[in-house]
Amino acid sequence: MSDKSKVVLPSAWFATDPFRVRYQESDQMGVVYHANYLSWFESGRTEMLRKLGFDYRSLEEQGVLLPVTEANLQFKSPARYDDLIAVHARLAVFSPLRVVYEYEVRRMRQDGNEDSPAGQPLVTGSTSHVWVNRDFKPVRLDRVLPELYGAITGALR
Amino acid sequence: MSDKSKVVLPSAWFATDPFRVRYQESDQMGVVYHANYLSWFESGRTEMLRKLGFDYRSLEEQGVLLPVTEANLQFKSPARYDDLIAVHARLAVFSPLRVVYEYEVRRMRQDGNEDSPAGQPLVTGSTSHVWVNRDFKPVRLDRVLPELYGAITGALR
Amino acid sequence: MSDKSKVVLPSAWFATDPFRVRYQESDQMGVVYHANYLSWFESGRTEMLRKLGFDYRSLEEQGVLLPVTEANLQFKSPARYDDLIAVHARLAVFSPLRVVYEYEVRRMRQDGNEDSPAGQPLVTGSTSHVWVNRDFKPVRLDRVLPELYGAITGALR
Amino acid sequence: MSDKSKVVLPSAWFATDPFRVRYQESDQMGVVYHANYLSWFESGRTEMLRKLGFDYRSLEEQGVLLPVTEANLQFKSPARYDDLIAVHARLAVFSPLRVVYEYEVRRMRQDGNEDSPAGQPLVTGSTSHVWVNRDFKPVRLDRVLPELYGAITGALR
Repeated sequence: MSDKSKVVLPSAWFATDPFRVRYQESDQMGVVYHANYLSWFESGRTEMLRKLGFDYRSLEEQGVLLPVTEANLQFKSPARYDDLIAVHARLAVFSPLRVVYEYEVRRMRQDGNEDSPAGQPLVTGSTSHVWVNRDFKPVRLDRVLPELYGAITGALR
Repeated sequence: MSDKSKVVLPSAWFATDPFRVRYQESDQMGVVYHANYLSWFESGRTEMLRKLGFDYRSLEEQGVLLPVTEANLQFKSPARYDDLIAVHARLAVFSPLRVVYEYEVRRMRQDGNEDSPAGQPLVTGSTSHVWVNRDFKPVRLDRVLPELYGAITGALR
Repeated sequence: MSDKSKVVLPSAWFATDPFRVRYQESDQMGVVYHANYLSWFESGRTEMLRKLGFDYRSLEEQGVLLPVTEANLQFKSPARYDDLIAVHARLAVFSPLRVVYEYEVRRMRQDGNEDSPAGQPLVTGSTSHVWVNRDFKPVRLDRVLPELYGAITGALR
Repeated sequence: MSDKSKVVLPSAWFATDPFRVRYQESDQMGVVYHANYLSWFESGRTEMLRKLGFDYRSLEEQGVLLPVTEANLQFKSPARYDDLIAVHARLAVFSPLRVVYEYEVRRMRQDGNEDSPAGQPLVTGSTSHVWVNRDFKPVRLDRVLPELYGAITGALR
């Protein structure tokens, strides 16, 4: 039985620290412009990797990129300027070839208290990615960075 | 047989004038950051409405908004800084309650010549919308702005 | 001797909590695109007001806006994706008619430890603002919101 | 008398083709968020270089970058969603070491007619830049790309 088979997916959810909606992110409807959620999703996956012990920046410095091949977003309720937001992310697929993340963007209670409940869901979504090199050619992560691949699968067990 | 039944969907495709990718839209991978395509989609639907004879800005001034409830994007090939881009949009659903747009983002030949072929497809996608008032309550467009509703369905025939 | 004369300016410096540079904020030079610092400056002044006990969002809800009339930025060293940033802001001018803020954007040590020194200065700058109503007509803050005006001048003493 | 001495500065003004303000560029005040003008300034200098016969993208591909070291903006009147905008740019300083651009952002008449007057001035400003290599070390343009340096000074005569 291979190590890989033991990876349990979807993974647990990981949340960013709460952050404030920026004025620039609002639009003339008085709500957050919808494209900003894709950037917040990225904060979610960066922080999830960090909490697993990895650093997406150093991954890129080693020549492996993870561009987005597909994205889906469902907008349930709008965030507004100065709202306190947390992005929850989890891995739904993790293979040597591709990765799928799922997200929930939530508005926290204004006090940002750690005892707060999980907040109101605003936007859900997912992004699909492939591992590529600097020339955007697909690579197998288990071959180009086998230690990293093993470490991430280990963390997901 | 009602007028409404004669609306033929999906509509024809409408394209924006070609525009240049801005430096700010690039990211450290050297390609356009994926969230920008959602803003380009919006340029596509604004220009499509204008070519049909309508003005989304004046629609909002009359108190009717069309927020995004869902978005899907497929990233096939990356755009880069200074590329010449055209966004093609069409209506897939148009009802008194909701609207669905479909998009193709294409890179034009650098000369931007009108004789150019349609360019290389980079990103496709769709966005779903509902008609709401300024309080984000759903409205029926055929009731709140019946003339506009008639005019758009007329233009789509 | 009026209360107003006792306002001591420039004020003390106030700092945001450290935040991470987002991937979208990078550009193809591999550094933060320079326009983003203006949005970070705004985070700096929002957080400064909050620490003084005020809420810029509620100010706008009361019909008073504070648009930017002038901005100056000096770029000394670039921030990069995933850097840990703090924005320091202080008031240089505060009158019933106008406000001037000054800023320092600093990169924190990666551990983000509160015992860290103040970090490396990256960008400095200032923004000038005038108090206006919803129609962008200048107003005197001490007349339209005298209690707020008194409270802010009080906090600055 | 050297060729260089004949460069006449400030240069003539060069204008971008008119473009529409994007919805994302609006904020909850209903006007363009001020940071966007810095990105528009960049469109102004890219188009000016193109009209002089140069291509900033290929400059970067040859290893020479032109990061911003200072920026100043004066906001006179706000642009709004769907306004038709043109950015006017000229060179105020051009040397082997540094470059200063000046800008005027103008709103065109809605018909965008070429016979339109120059439009209403909204924002003015300037940006200062230094020539650097990919490691952000200052370079002399007349040494690293002498033909380009000669060609630009020639175009400015």
